[in-house]
Amino acid sequence: MYCQSCKNVYDEEESGTCKECYEEASETEEELKREIDDLRSRLLFLRLLSPTLDASSIGHSDILLHAIPSSPSHPSPSSADAGRLETPAVPAHRVILSSRSPVFRAMLDNEMEESRSGIIKIYDVSYDVLRAFVHYMYTAEVLLDVQMACDLLELAEKYEVKHLKTYCEKFITSKVNNDNAIIHYAFAHRHSAKQLLEASMSVLVESMPTLAERDEYKELVEKDPRIVVEIYETYMSRQVNTAAEKESDCSCRN
Amino acid sequence: MYCQSCKNVYDEEESGTCKECYEEASETEEELKREIDDLRSRLLFLRLLSPTLDASSIGHSDILLHAIPSSPSHPSPSSADAGRLETPAVPAHRVILSSRSPVFRAMLDNEMEESRSGIIKIYDVSYDVLRAFVHYMYTAEVLLDVQMACDLLELAEKYEVKHLKTYCEKFITSKVNNDNAIIHYAFAHRHSAKQLLEASMSVLVESMPTLAERDEYKELVEKDPRIVVEIYETYMSRQVNTAAEKESDCSCRN
Repeated sequence: MYCQSCKNVYDEEESGTCKECYEEASETEEELKREIDDLRSRLLFLRLLSPTLDASSIGHSDILLHAIPSSPSHPSPSSADAGRLETPAVPAHRVILSSRSPVFRAMLDNEMEESRSGIIKIYDVSYDVLRAFVHYMYTAEVLLDVQMACDLLELAEKYEVKHLKTYCEKFITSKVNNDNAIIHYAFAHRHSAKQLLEASMSVLVESMPTLAERDEYKELVEKDPRIVVEIYETYMSRQVNTAAEKESDCSCRN
Repeated sequence: MYCQSCKNVYDEEESGTCKECYEEASETEEELKREIDDLRSRLLFLRLLSPTLDASSIGHSDILLHAIPSSPSHPSPSSADAGRLETPAVPAHRVILSSRSPVFRAMLDNEMEESRSGIIKIYDVSYDVLRAFVHYMYTAEVLLDVQMACDLLELAEKYEVKHLKTYCEKFITSKVNNDNAIIHYAFAHRHSAKQLLEASMSVLVESMPTLAERDEYKELVEKDPRIVVEIYETYMSRQVNTAAEKESDCSCRN
């Protein structure tokens, strides 16, 4: 037989589909590709000029965002504020911040200090992270590494920018391995990142026998022993399930 | 043989693809669907609250657009202007108008009257069309009928909103038939809408023998005889091509 797709001859046992299904599948693929083209062109249209990159869009900006990095020597955001506004401000627009984040919307729609002054201070964040955050609000685009993804996830959670949180979580999840699973598990726990929590746990239960030797483990026991307890509990409940499955397997065979 | 897709048995002459190609095609389809999901969620994120629908986004608006419908008794946009601002204004944001239209950008970035006053008058357009136009700027969405598509195409051309012009042109092209081909051809001609021009011409050359009897034809001869000449010229050149093809067909056979 002759394959209509790769044009090679194949045997009966290597058969895939009938002609009708092949033609339908080809049509479906064409339709999906047309839909992708259409969606891409709408995305390109809706993407805004980012004030972090495009000077011409700064002209109409009506908000300035200031990154206030966390400083261990001055932990409270109080008197020393003025002196800590060292990095340049990131310009933005009320309408964009309000559209993307219910937290900004509440802040800017009500007569809060930020709305009156047009200045929003964002605590415990670096200038680069704030810049990437604002850029994402305009373009739905960001270049990630794991650190940036973690920082942006925290910010996205704080300002309830769900789409960015999900995007970062997916990225971090794809990077989970033996070496970082404890750290990511604890991080996911703090930020209710369910997908990342599952992925880290799956890696953790695989490496339980050597877990207690790791430095990150010891640190976590010091810092947040309840999370460690949770890891053991999940491990034990999976053990019980596996044992039960094995038993039911055996009783079926007998 | 057994089709892996529809699960039916088929004969050799009804064969479509080999197993490998079937599996590849299934994977491709899954990938394309994932990409569509991803694009849709990004679109949903980038879509803005439209000030034509959502009262809360009007708060930050810094521009008011006024529709000035064409009135035959006062054809020039001059002295009677003030009295003609009858319909409600459509609120909008400089940053959005600037992002979507180079014409608005030039108007608002430079110290033109519109930029200073925050009021932009849009001539020869109804309130409903202006509202749909602004809504599209925020959402990339619009509900079309042919009249709305034509009106929006004109406006999109004037303000160089290419994405909307293409969208309307596609819609009108899908509605071209024997009854409206002349009107759409003339419209496409006026607005350099190439796809619509081709589609209308294809319908026109099919119905050439009865064309001269139509009222729209007579109107067009009165109004813009050069377009009518163009229709005849295209028809004649296609006739010549068809004749040449037939001749080369005959000579091949002899």
